[in-house]
Amino acid sequence: MSEIEQLLRPALRGRTPYGAPQLDVDVQLNTNESSYPVPPEVVAAIVAELEEQLGGLNRYPDREFTDLRTALIAYLEDRSGVSLRPEQVWAGNGSNEVLSHLVQAFGGPDRTALGFTPAYSMHPIISETLGTTWVDGQRDSDSFDLTVESAVEQARRVDPHLVFLCSPNNPTGTALPFDVIAAMLEAAPRAVVVVDEAYAEFARPGTPSALSLLAAHPRLVVTRTMSKAFALAGGRLGYLAADPQVVDALRLVRLPYHLSAPTQTIARVSLEHADRLLETVDAIKEQRDRLVAELTAMGLRPVPSDANFVLFGGLADAPATWQALLDRGVLVRDVGIPHHLRVTAGTPEETGHFLAAMTELVTTHASSQEAS
Amino acid sequence: MSEIEQLLRPALRGRTPYGAPQLDVDVQLNTNESSYPVPPEVVAAIVAELEEQLGGLNRYPDREFTDLRTALIAYLEDRSGVSLRPEQVWAGNGSNEVLSHLVQAFGGPDRTALGFTPAYSMHPIISETLGTTWVDGQRDSDSFDLTVESAVEQARRVDPHLVFLCSPNNPTGTALPFDVIAAMLEAAPRAVVVVDEAYAEFARPGTPSALSLLAAHPRLVVTRTMSKAFALAGGRLGYLAADPQVVDALRLVRLPYHLSAPTQTIARVSLEHADRLLETVDAIKEQRDRLVAELTAMGLRPVPSDANFVLFGGLADAPATWQALLDRGVLVRDVGIPHHLRVTAGTPEETGHFLAAMTELVTTHASSQEAS
Repeated sequence: MSEIEQLLRPALRGRTPYGAPQLDVDVQLNTNESSYPVPPEVVAAIVAELEEQLGGLNRYPDREFTDLRTALIAYLEDRSGVSLRPEQVWAGNGSNEVLSHLVQAFGGPDRTALGFTPAYSMHPIISETLGTTWVDGQRDSDSFDLTVESAVEQARRVDPHLVFLCSPNNPTGTALPFDVIAAMLEAAPRAVVVVDEAYAEFARPGTPSALSLLAAHPRLVVTRTMSKAFALAGGRLGYLAADPQVVDALRLVRLPYHLSAPTQTIARVSLEHADRLLETVDAIKEQRDRLVAELTAMGLRPVPSDANFVLFGGLADAPATWQALLDRGVLVRDVGIPHHLRVTAGTPEETGHFLAAMTELVTTHASSQEAS
Repeated sequence: MSEIEQLLRPALRGRTPYGAPQLDVDVQLNTNESSYPVPPEVVAAIVAELEEQLGGLNRYPDREFTDLRTALIAYLEDRSGVSLRPEQVWAGNGSNEVLSHLVQAFGGPDRTALGFTPAYSMHPIISETLGTTWVDGQRDSDSFDLTVESAVEQARRVDPHLVFLCSPNNPTGTALPFDVIAAMLEAAPRAVVVVDEAYAEFARPGTPSALSLLAAHPRLVVTRTMSKAFALAGGRLGYLAADPQVVDALRLVRLPYHLSAPTQTIARVSLEHADRLLETVDAIKEQRDRLVAELTAMGLRPVPSDANFVLFGGLADAPATWQALLDRGVLVRDVGIPHHLRVTAGTPEETGHFLAAMTELVTTHASSQEAS
C-alpha cells in the first residue's frame, strides 16, 4: 500500500470509481441519455439569456436559485397537477447531488439506509461514501417486482433512517406498485422515504407519481432529473420535492452557491421550453416498446418497462454478449445481473442497429434453457 | 422539535445555513468577488463555444474534464513556472467542492482536521458536516500571524488527518510564512496538508506559491479558485493540484459527472483568456493598498493584505459599524472577529464610497482605546 492509500479513509480502500465506460462508439445506448439533441430553437433561447448574463459572472449566483424553483414548480404542476410552493423544491448538480444532500442530512455514521436491489447503483454508493450503513433489500429474483408485503417486512426488520425506492426502477424499468410508498412510510416510522422518479416522464399511461402523496406525508421525498426526458444530461440538473422542513435541512449541508448561474439559467430556460423538449418522449417510448416486442420475439426475456430503457434476460453470458455488441458498434450496459443486459431506447435507427446486431447474435448468445 | 428536526442527524440540529446576506445594495464589498465584469470579448468567446455545444447536452459530460485539465495546467505553468501533469489536477463546482472531496477521502468519523482560526470558515463547516472532528488551532490574537513554532507545536499535539492552511489567509489577508508548510508536513506525519490559495493571484510580489513544493511532498494539496482573480464567482470552478494518487482518491468520492459540460467550457475558455481576465488584478491590488493606507490614516488598524480584501480593527462595535455602512449603501462583511470588519477592494469608485462612509463614521465608531 502506498503512502497515500494508507491515508485514505479505511472504508474507501480497494474501491474503484463509479462510472460506465465513456467509449467513442457509433451507437451509445448505455447510460439512458436521450438520443435527441437539444433543438436549435431551445439552444438559441438559452444562448440569448447567457449572452446577457455571462458578463455578470464576477458575482456569486443566487444561492437560493429562486427563478429556477419557480420554473420547476410550474413544470410539476403542469404535468402532474400537484401544486407545490417554492420552499418545497431543491436542486443540485444532477440528482446525485440532491441524493447526497439527503444522505448528509438524514443519514451518517450509526445510521442505516435501505434500498431494494437491483436499483440505482448510486443509492448505496452515495450512502456508503458518506458513512451511512447500507442494507441491500431484496426484490423478487425472477420478476424484479417488489410487493407491499415484502417491502414492509424488510423495512420493519431494518428500521432504517432512509429508504430509497426507485419508480420506474433502474435498471429493471418497471414502476413500483404505488401502494408500496404509503406502506413503507408506515413500516419505517423514523425514515425519510425517497422515491427516485428519474424516469417518471417515460412511464406508461396511468402510472401515478409520488408527488401526489407529498401533502399527506412530510417524510416523503420525490427526486427527479432533467438528464433523461429533458435531454439535459450534460447540463446537470437534478431536483426534489418535499416538505419545506426537509428542504430547510438540506440547506444545512449544501455547499453555498452550489448551482452556478449558467446551470440555473440553462435549466430554467429548458423548463420554459418543456413542451418542445418533451416532444421526443413519445418517440422514445415507441422504441422502448419496440425493444420489448422484438426481444420477446427473439426468445429473450425483456422486463416490462416504464422508462427509456429495457433490461432483458435470457443470455448465456451477458459480458460476452456486451462485448459482441460492442464489436458491432453498439454500446449497452452490463449492470451486473447475470444473464441480463440493459439497453437504452434510442432513435429508430439506433434501436434498429441494436436489434439487428442482437438478431445476429441471439442464436449463439441466448441461454439454451431460457431461449427455448 | 418538529417531526423532521427529530430525523435530522444530531450533529446538525440547531445549526443555521452558511452564507453571507445576499442584499441588493449599490456597493457590494462583502464576498471578495471581483467588481469587474467579464469583458465582452471573453463573453463572446464563451458564447461562441456554448452555441456549438449546447445541442449536445443530451449526452453526459466528459467525466474526467480532460480539456479543462489541460487548460488548468497550462495556466499554472505559465504563472507559477511549475509543470504539472493532467493527472495532478482536480476540479469541482467551486473550491468548496474540491475541499469536500478531500474531507470525504481523507477525513470522516474518528478522524481529525486542524485549521488555524480565524481562517476560511468553510474549512470547519465542510469538515464537521462530513463528520470529521474539527480542532480550532490558534493564531496570534493580535497580528493573526502563525509562526512555525506555534504551528508545529499545535500539529504535534493534535496529530491530525487533515490540516488546512490558508495563504493568503481569509479573512485576515496575509500570506502564510512559507516555512510553515514544510514544517507542517513534518509535524503532522499522517496528514494531508491543504494549502488554500484562493487569493494567490493577489499576493504581493515575491510571495511564493505552495505549488513549488508539490514535487517533493506527496501529502501536500494546493487548492485554487476561479471565483476571485478570474472574476468567475458565478461560474463555480475551483480546482486543486496534488500528487496523482491524491487525485485518484478523490475520484472515489466524487459524484459521477459532477462538472457540467457548460461549466467545463466556461472555465476552459476563461483560462484561455487568462491574460485579459487578470488585467484587473493590478487595479484591485492598488485599491487594496489604498484601503490599507487610508484606514491606517484614519487611525484604524488594517491587517497587511496579500488578497483582494482588507480586514481592519479598531472599531468599538463592529456590528454597529457594519449596519451604519449598510445604511450608507455599502455592504461589507462582519466575520465575527470583535472590533474588526472585512472589506473587499472594489473599483476605485466603490472603494471611494466605502472610504468616504468610513471617514464619516470613524470619529464615533472607532474604539477610543485603539484609535488613539
